[in-house]
Amino acid sequence: MTGGGLQPGTHSRAAILAIGDEITLGQTLNTNTRWLAEKLTAAGIVPVEHVTVPDDHLALSAAIARMAGSVDLVVATGGLGPTADDLTRPALAAAMGDNLVEDKLALAQIEAWFAATGREVSPLNRVQALRPSGAITLPNLYGTAPREMTAMYEAQVLPRLGPPPDRTVRTHVLHCVGIGESDLAAQLGDLMDRGRAPVLPLVGTTASGMIVSCRVRYEGSAPPLEAEALLEQVCKQIRQKAGEYVFGEQGQTLPGAVMTLLRERSETVATVESCTGGMLASMLTEVPGSSLAFTGGLVTYADELKQTLAGVDGALLGPGPEAPGAVSREVAVAMAVGGLGRLKVNHCLAITGIAGPGGAVPAVADRQAKPVGTVYIARVSRLTGNGHGTDVRKFLFAGDRQQVREWSCRTALAMLRLHLVGAEHLRLLRQVA
Amino acid sequence: MTGGGLQPGTHSRAAILAIGDEITLGQTLNTNTRWLAEKLTAAGIVPVEHVTVPDDHLALSAAIARMAGSVDLVVATGGLGPTADDLTRPALAAAMGDNLVEDKLALAQIEAWFAATGREVSPLNRVQALRPSGAITLPNLYGTAPREMTAMYEAQVLPRLGPPPDRTVRTHVLHCVGIGESDLAAQLGDLMDRGRAPVLPLVGTTASGMIVSCRVRYEGSAPPLEAEALLEQVCKQIRQKAGEYVFGEQGQTLPGAVMTLLRERSETVATVESCTGGMLASMLTEVPGSSLAFTGGLVTYADELKQTLAGVDGALLGPGPEAPGAVSREVAVAMAVGGLGRLKVNHCLAITGIAGPGGAVPAVADRQAKPVGTVYIARVSRLTGNGHGTDVRKFLFAGDRQQVREWSCRTALAMLRLHLVGAEHLRLLRQVA
Repeated sequence: MTGGGLQPGTHSRAAILAIGDEITLGQTLNTNTRWLAEKLTAAGIVPVEHVTVPDDHLALSAAIARMAGSVDLVVATGGLGPTADDLTRPALAAAMGDNLVEDKLALAQIEAWFAATGREVSPLNRVQALRPSGAITLPNLYGTAPREMTAMYEAQVLPRLGPPPDRTVRTHVLHCVGIGESDLAAQLGDLMDRGRAPVLPLVGTTASGMIVSCRVRYEGSAPPLEAEALLEQVCKQIRQKAGEYVFGEQGQTLPGAVMTLLRERSETVATVESCTGGMLASMLTEVPGSSLAFTGGLVTYADELKQTLAGVDGALLGPGPEAPGAVSREVAVAMAVGGLGRLKVNHCLAITGIAGPGGAVPAVADRQAKPVGTVYIARVSRLTGNGHGTDVRKFLFAGDRQQVREWSCRTALAMLRLHLVGAEHLRLLRQVA
Repeated sequence: MTGGGLQPGTHSRAAILAIGDEITLGQTLNTNTRWLAEKLTAAGIVPVEHVTVPDDHLALSAAIARMAGSVDLVVATGGLGPTADDLTRPALAAAMGDNLVEDKLALAQIEAWFAATGREVSPLNRVQALRPSGAITLPNLYGTAPREMTAMYEAQVLPRLGPPPDRTVRTHVLHCVGIGESDLAAQLGDLMDRGRAPVLPLVGTTASGMIVSCRVRYEGSAPPLEAEALLEQVCKQIRQKAGEYVFGEQGQTLPGAVMTLLRERSETVATVESCTGGMLASMLTEVPGSSLAFTGGLVTYADELKQTLAGVDGALLGPGPEAPGAVSREVAVAMAVGGLGRLKVNHCLAITGIAGPGGAVPAVADRQAKPVGTVYIARVSRLTGNGHGTDVRKFLFAGDRQQVREWSCRTALAMLRLHLVGAEHLRLLRQVA
């Protein structure tokens, strides 16, 4: 919904329109709008409204007309298929007070697409070549894949955008683990003061799971190089204030950051998991090329397997009254030591805890002493001479089963990371001992 | 934004308003709106518009005024915190042409909340007790947890809703695995015909990962019992047409369904994973109470561990020219057989494959023969007498590393499920041999 030859400065404020019953009825989560919002923001165009309407001609044309009257740019997705409930074409024409015409180039593309798969274009598909006479068609070279919208935006929409020439927008993100959002905010202090804009970059924080991200954003009239220098300066200040809690930037993940550190040292890691049941190993192997630093893991869910697979001493597991039990400091360390030897690695991470609901602990008395969310995490590392170094900590995580498991795995990764960067003295979020 | 004592029939069409810069700028994915849309739909109230606006007084009050004029109910979330960018209170008052007053009950709750944590209410927090004089405050008994909105909706909003008395809405969902969405649609035939409404329930499908869900929805004038009978009849027809590809309904998950089948038989399962690196074990242990049927697993990422942990014959792994290699039918079976014996279970699932990018296969020649997405999955089960039964299949999955891994795990679960329900003859999606 934008002309072909735009001048810079014509797009300052944008609105995003998503179309489809499956979204308005709540059957499908609308991820397209968020994606477009992020891209427009990065391009220096501020999205000021998101709207979703059903597959309904009147609602759709009314939304288009209203939005086009209030912003410089409306980006719309959906309702462009060949079936009767795809109404974006006629609704756009109605909103523009225009009529639909057949776009010869678009039709040729559709015909070529069908010819390539040995089919002929049906009258139904021919509808997809229609456009309002005063509009242009953005060619779709990307078939019917789910990634269609993102590819079309990059190739067809982005080059046509004209952000204001006197506005520079630059963003950067730093990720922290092991520190709470409010503690981090206290550290950052006036870096988060909204009064800094538009002269200085603004810092905002968002927490997702136990990862807290600092989003730095400059939007003002400084030339690009100056804006980038300002951004860099703020990132440096954040790193100074947040210290070794910062593990990465931009698209980097926590497992990815840990893997990079291991690969830089040519070291390896293995895992021995109880309550997380393979999730820690799964996170490490999410990283492409993880086989260079991750050799494998044991999931010792049943206590018997803690003995047979990881070599944990049965006396530690109980049931004697003096035994620390499966969820204990001693068993976490024994699991990690067993994994270190049997999987022949430099570092081994072990997790044992109670993810809930109900937990794996039989005795009520024990369950009272070890509430749901109690998790012991051990990191054991081979020393250059003989023996090994050990770090074992107790945590009390909040939330449901899945949350306790996820926080446990990320915390284990954070413990290995602190060791690799020489910052083991740092206390981690939810650590109780 | 609704009065206290509403009559049925006052809420037919709803709009949902989300508020916050972090959403409009694309930093945060808006999941609240989808959640509310699903709940309103289930309550018989049709959401006809979703809107998100930034933390901006004028934009917010204009959106409220416009939406309140076009629907029977506006549900708004966000902008209710104590800081300067929380503008929902004054914007609502402006849209209503009203002024803000302090709500004594709300203030008492805030004071009690602070007293419980030994703090005093600051002037900043006192702002949270304000409301337009003509409005009521929905009490928040749920603190500042992330689940705040959902709990408040259930306890405070839902009981105040008045869906049309002459409209019955009933929904049900059946989940399938191992069949593609278009194949399933072909099986369902005219059950998916939109012309069935409003007399008969409509069936729609949505695919997420390799799970295809059939959403059955009745909305019409039939009395509730009749609507439920119609829904049940359609579900029966779907089960007939989709057969054993249906694994569950409503909130049931694939790992949950498999765990239920195992627990019904008092049988156990273990896992031996290469390219999925623990993800299959992690999926099984997502299920509360999984320790009753899942004992543990091996993550044999490095080839050496396939030998030492799972007992795979080194000659199968290579490097000899006759060796089938780590990604092969033979090694998948050997991994599963090894796990069955060493972890002492009734069933063992093994996965070996190439998740990409690049893959774990060293020789280029081998990589050409086994492209990214090639995965072998074996299920081995102890027989009642001696020995074991084996099912091993080859798949070619599409997508990126994460997708290949997820599809591999779900397919392994589907293979075990087919065995447990006696439908091993069924071919699974993406199966090539």
